[in-house]
Amino acid sequence: MFQNVAILGVGLIGGSIGLAIKSRNPKTRVIGVGRNSESLARARAAGIIDTFHTDTQKGMHTADFVVVCTPVDRVADDVAAVAELAPKSALITDVGSTKRRIVETLAERMPSDGPTFVGSHPLAGSEKRGADHAKPDLFQNRKVILTPNGHEPAEAVSRVEEFWRWLGAEVISLSPEEHDNILAITSHLPHVAAAAVSKLMPPEWLTYTGSGFRDSTRVASGDAGLWAAIFRENQGPVREAVRNLIEQLQQFEQSLSDDSVVSLTTWLADAKRVRDALGS
Amino acid sequence: MFQNVAILGVGLIGGSIGLAIKSRNPKTRVIGVGRNSESLARARAAGIIDTFHTDTQKGMHTADFVVVCTPVDRVADDVAAVAELAPKSALITDVGSTKRRIVETLAERMPSDGPTFVGSHPLAGSEKRGADHAKPDLFQNRKVILTPNGHEPAEAVSRVEEFWRWLGAEVISLSPEEHDNILAITSHLPHVAAAAVSKLMPPEWLTYTGSGFRDSTRVASGDAGLWAAIFRENQGPVREAVRNLIEQLQQFEQSLSDDSVVSLTTWLADAKRVRDALGS
Repeated sequence: MFQNVAILGVGLIGGSIGLAIKSRNPKTRVIGVGRNSESLARARAAGIIDTFHTDTQKGMHTADFVVVCTPVDRVADDVAAVAELAPKSALITDVGSTKRRIVETLAERMPSDGPTFVGSHPLAGSEKRGADHAKPDLFQNRKVILTPNGHEPAEAVSRVEEFWRWLGAEVISLSPEEHDNILAITSHLPHVAAAAVSKLMPPEWLTYTGSGFRDSTRVASGDAGLWAAIFRENQGPVREAVRNLIEQLQQFEQSLSDDSVVSLTTWLADAKRVRDALGS
Repeated sequence: MFQNVAILGVGLIGGSIGLAIKSRNPKTRVIGVGRNSESLARARAAGIIDTFHTDTQKGMHTADFVVVCTPVDRVADDVAAVAELAPKSALITDVGSTKRRIVETLAERMPSDGPTFVGSHPLAGSEKRGADHAKPDLFQNRKVILTPNGHEPAEAVSRVEEFWRWLGAEVISLSPEEHDNILAITSHLPHVAAAAVSKLMPPEWLTYTGSGFRDSTRVASGDAGLWAAIFRENQGPVREAVRNLIEQLQQFEQSLSDDSVVSLTTWLADAKRVRDALGS
């Protein structure tokens, strides 16, 4: 499909992409690019990448496909830099959890005669970090959202789509704005809620938790810096979602203070109906 | 340990107690008591109970141990009723998720020369309901909190403690007030947060969720009526917890509106520290 795939940022996602490629076609050359040569050497030893460079220029000049897997607040700069270094025929994508600002920024910054960028967001991940936790089947049966801006060549979009399908994912296209509005609710809000609940927990009470607390706060173990960047990139939709969450909680607190069985039960039944539709 | 154990309310918890007893000592007679003879017959066929009655009086007169597994808002009345029907030497416990009101009410209502009540709360369960989901190992390596009021004979408390240890649980004693304050944070608050997040999810966006949303909202599938009763029984501590949650969310929203990397990262890192201490 591609001959030389460069992965910029070989962490959990980038590493899982490397493993998934190598498990499907060992002949595809996977080039890891990053800052930390020690962790890159470990990734090479683990069969995640074939070779690595800490100098981005060296990593890019043979690549026909580049996947930028750096934190969301660095993606736009990194893609723009890669676009100057990779062959003009190269295709570039990313894996950022937010899309609107990245796609808008790159619409202005990508060279008109150079590589093409198509934004991606695989809905797969973990609260864990680093290529040591990479898995070859991380994208199997998961969704990947593509966020073309409508000006990319159709063939470029198709090839990125095929790439993710090759790794086992189901691909959907959304506008960058739709993507960010949806992710504010499906991913960013649950993270804020889980973190807020965790902050209220005195450590000496952790021993009294069951699987409910454990499951419902798991995401709060995600990296604080990465998540701060995600929230800042998606500030508008996340702020609105948090204000709506506060309103829901005020409504609940009022029903409880009124001791109203009917309004408490209705409030909870509405939530249950939504959650039941997802299955366990 | 006991010869005739009566279980009032053979649902997920009551049924799991039956299965756990039968798997440890098939000779212990387990008597199911409830309203629905069809589901009781199914429980008997599944080896959860040996016999059943829909008339509480009939179910109780041979019991030396009674476990009341009805919804929290019915526990106090049910224990008081059982105390009039069971032999004077019988021991009664419950499995309610709240304890203060139950223990206070029963301190006034238990007969002075009759059966002894010792409150229990096994930290085990599921968003699922009914004896069809019962498991013999539901209490294995789980905690059970006992909430004696200090006036029970020490021997009665020890026997209830031994019973739960026999089913594989670790037993801890707390005052009913401590129990309710702790559970407001470890169990009731995560449920409110998960339900509030679920209520903000348009059903057509469920397809864009990953494991993060799934895990963090799973508890919202719990039965609305049972949970409304739990919140009402623990009104004071739950209202305080929800008000504190709202404050945390307002703080987050303010930091995001200020676009303050430092305060967002600190806020998230505080949550991560607490959650990391629990392990994945």
